Amino acid sequence: MLNRTDLVKAIDHTVLRPDATLDDVLRACDEAEQYHFASVVVHPYWVPHVERRLANSEVKVGTVVGFPLGATTTRVKVYEMRTVVAMGAQEVQAVINISALKSGDMTRFRRDIEEVLFASHLTGLTQEAQTTLTQFVLETAYLTEREIVLVCELVREIGGEFVVTSTGYAPGGASTNDLRLIRQAIGANMGVKAVGGIRTLDFALDLLNAGANRIGLSASVPIVEEFIAREEKVPVGSRRR
Amino acid sequence: MLNRTDLVKAIDHTVLRPDATLDDVLRACDEAEQYHFASVVVHPYWVPHVERRLANSEVKVGTVVGFPLGATTTRVKVYEMRTVVAMGAQEVQAVINISALKSGDMTRFRRDIEEVLFASHLTGLTQEAQTTLTQFVLETAYLTEREIVLVCELVREIGGEFVVTSTGYAPGGASTNDLRLIRQAIGANMGVKAVGGIRTLDFALDLLNAGANRIGLSASVPIVEEFIAREEKVPVGSRRR
Repeated sequence: MLNRTDLVKAIDHTVLRPDATLDDVLRACDEAEQYHFASVVVHPYWVPHVERRLANSEVKVGTVVGFPLGATTTRVKVYEMRTVVAMGAQEVQAVINISALKSGDMTRFRRDIEEVLFASHLTGLTQEAQTTLTQFVLETAYLTEREIVLVCELVREIGGEFVVTSTGYAPGGASTNDLRLIRQAIGANMGVKAVGGIRTLDFALDLLNAGANRIGLSASVPIVEEFIAREEKVPVGSRRR
Repeated sequence: MLNRTDLVKAIDHTVLRPDATLDDVLRACDEAEQYHFASVVVHPYWVPHVERRLANSEVKVGTVVGFPLGATTTRVKVYEMRTVVAMGAQEVQAVINISALKSGDMTRFRRDIEEVLFASHLTGLTQEAQTTLTQFVLETAYLTEREIVLVCELVREIGGEFVVTSTGYAPGGASTNDLRLIRQAIGANMGVKAVGGIRTLDFALDLLNAGANRIGLSASVPIVEEFIAREEKVPVGSRRR
């Protein structure tokens, strides 16, 4: 069974509302430190602030590229990737080009993923000891099961390390069904992150049990507090130490 | 009273779904030519296709920058602006940085608008006879009336020519109330475009009557067809020629 450390280490504490303020972002950083979340995820505009606030922390600086529609050009995504890595982003969710996939233009679809991944590596090399994790967002709400599998296999083949179910901005988010499908397609060595509509502890636990390595959500604090409250109701003799 | 030409010349025929296919985009171009819409608006990925398809047409090539959240860095927006102008975009909707505004960082909020506007002019100068119209998207759903007025006055002061109410991706879209507020703030010499939730002819007409120079929508064809059907019901003697 999952313990409290497992839970908090799987949480990407996410602030991606377009009207978030500096106070919101700094509070999220402090909460992430206090609860030992894996990362704080913000828009590129906020990366320098988060990088400074988390400078002496184990909490990672997360951001997004081509977000949330994935429909800008590859060159713009590459430039954005270089920009955020140079500013100190350690984990970057890049949205795939759904239109290229849907139009059957697999050459440009594949190149988009390759060049974004390459841009993160290249920039990383110029900075000592910096490694950037690129997470490709599928936006499953727009994909068939067959397309989900195809994209996962492609990302794996290209050398990507991580996929993400959703942006949180589409008509649908993460599901345990999609999680299982994705886990089967990527195998055991890649990571998968569940995002979108995660507002209860039970759903968060379901997604982790279905194979998610990370969950991205904004309701992180109430969800962890509920986990703690439940732990405390467990009879003392059976409590994990 | 508005005639059919007034209506079609005010319409930006919009295809901004992230899963739009090449067929969808080319069909929109053909519809725009057939109905004489002002422009076709697509994501940067599609600009080269639209530019080719509309090469011999009066229909303008429209696209977006920092869309729909406006929360990337100014440098990335500037790079995206240069990219789309170089690819042939003639009208560009750039989303303002709502977070900077809400955080009271007016220096960075203002600079973001200035640099995006400057980037469009600069790139335009390198290409003969090309002029790019930048339209700043307010995303009114997140703004107070006071903020709407403030942003309009700022864009006007900086030398911007056009503002847009919304992206169509926020919880709310255009309203006649906001349109009147914006028109008052920008004066008679700037343009304003209404976007978001425009699905009926009556609402489209209300927005144009409230002061919109342009309306951005995807249901352009059924709305114009309804206008034509209504015209044809008017007694022949009173019909406009």
